[in-house]
Amino acid sequence: MSKFVVIGERIHVIAQEIKDAIAERNPEAIIRRAKEQLDAGADYIDVNIGPAEKEGAEIMPWAVKAIQDALDNPPLVLDTANAHAIRAGLEVYNAAKGRAIVNSADAGDRLSNLDLAAEYGAICIGLLMKKGVPRDNDERNEYLQTILEHAMEAGLDPSEDVWFDPLTLVIKGMQEKQEEFLEFLRILKEMGLKSTCGLSNASNGMPAHVRPIVDRTLCAMSIESGLTSAIMNPLDKELLDTVKTSEVILNRVLYADSYLDI
Amino acid sequence: MSKFVVIGERIHVIAQEIKDAIAERNPEAIIRRAKEQLDAGADYIDVNIGPAEKEGAEIMPWAVKAIQDALDNPPLVLDTANAHAIRAGLEVYNAAKGRAIVNSADAGDRLSNLDLAAEYGAICIGLLMKKGVPRDNDERNEYLQTILEHAMEAGLDPSEDVWFDPLTLVIKGMQEKQEEFLEFLRILKEMGLKSTCGLSNASNGMPAHVRPIVDRTLCAMSIESGLTSAIMNPLDKELLDTVKTSEVILNRVLYADSYLDI
Repeated sequence: MSKFVVIGERIHVIAQEIKDAIAERNPEAIIRRAKEQLDAGADYIDVNIGPAEKEGAEIMPWAVKAIQDALDNPPLVLDTANAHAIRAGLEVYNAAKGRAIVNSADAGDRLSNLDLAAEYGAICIGLLMKKGVPRDNDERNEYLQTILEHAMEAGLDPSEDVWFDPLTLVIKGMQEKQEEFLEFLRILKEMGLKSTCGLSNASNGMPAHVRPIVDRTLCAMSIESGLTSAIMNPLDKELLDTVKTSEVILNRVLYADSYLDI
Repeated sequence: MSKFVVIGERIHVIAQEIKDAIAERNPEAIIRRAKEQLDAGADYIDVNIGPAEKEGAEIMPWAVKAIQDALDNPPLVLDTANAHAIRAGLEVYNAAKGRAIVNSADAGDRLSNLDLAAEYGAICIGLLMKKGVPRDNDERNEYLQTILEHAMEAGLDPSEDVWFDPLTLVIKGMQEKQEEFLEFLRILKEMGLKSTCGLSNASNGMPAHVRPIVDRTLCAMSIESGLTSAIMNPLDKELLDTVKTSEVILNRVLYADSYLDI
């Protein structure tokens, strides 16, 4: 089993600082947030430019080049609903330190992002959804089959090139659906498929002092169930410690007294 | 699925304060530690008087009565290798707030503690070991069968009256055995059997700042895998928060913003 992949979530257009950086084409905050996350232990940096319907095909390559030029080509996740923006980002992407990840395809309108990933030799996240979030694991499985079939037709290796996201559902409102989420991670693991998710979605709407506890508990449970990567905040040290500790418990990283500092 | 059972571990003869309390037959420290743990959220209090080969049959009923009289009969776990001491404890035990738990039977010399539990209507912990710790899950399964068979012959209901302990092994030295431990919890769960373990054994020998992180990560992973109770330190607030959060994620306790304070 390969090492768990931490994807840093902190370059996101919802942050005012990032929104301004994009609007002003001033990469300073973007580069700083990328560096902070890499220093904290992130393996990949998610670059979320939002829907970016108008200028996406200009913004994404600009952000990709800004980060990769400044920080020696860290591996990136290109995150937008605009397929033209993803293509433009892939055009300038430097894969010296790791393949790009397309975020994301789904089982509906965004199925063709799998073709885009295949064309550029990128990994593609496959959201197990179509129009809304999956109602249950039968629906997740239906979407999984749709994505698997299309991925194979596109020439992707489904066990390496597609990371399936079973969709973390918010506990406040869908508490009864969490166990099924964990069960689906186990199904993906048993099928030999890789997975990812936006871990902190589950604790959305909870009080600020509760969220980190929920995030790290769900993180440990999810890794135990087979989760192989997550989009998360690597600056949350206790969360990253949970990832490292889970890997020690599952014998993927050799224990040393100093393992939390490595 | 019933609520996870927290068994407080802090009345243990290894603590000098408890050792002295027993030697002097002064119950003050024992009662205080029982109360602290109950106040912190423990469901059961483990009363570990050590091997107690000589005076066990006097010490155990003394300790049981001291705690139960002072604190309105909290449920207790009678923990000693001396079967006479357990019997003497069961003789005076008041089950008004919950059945006694015998700690413990195993698949070897202590198999007959199952009969003792049956005779007094108590629950019995079944350690999945014989002479040494189990080498692998085949050996755990062999011991499980031995205990199951004896328990049923003794008239115990194996899905209610016996809590199986697959034995937490120390990570420093047996790192590669942790995943099998979690797998065995899943096997017990699938068989509809209850489980318990000494959770903090896994982090034995680790630096003091690392142990709590390992304990709570393994706790979340173990509950996800099916663990239904643990002998642990309820005064470790973050560990107890992990238990509560795991139960919320698995939908056994209804979420409220204040669930950590309840």
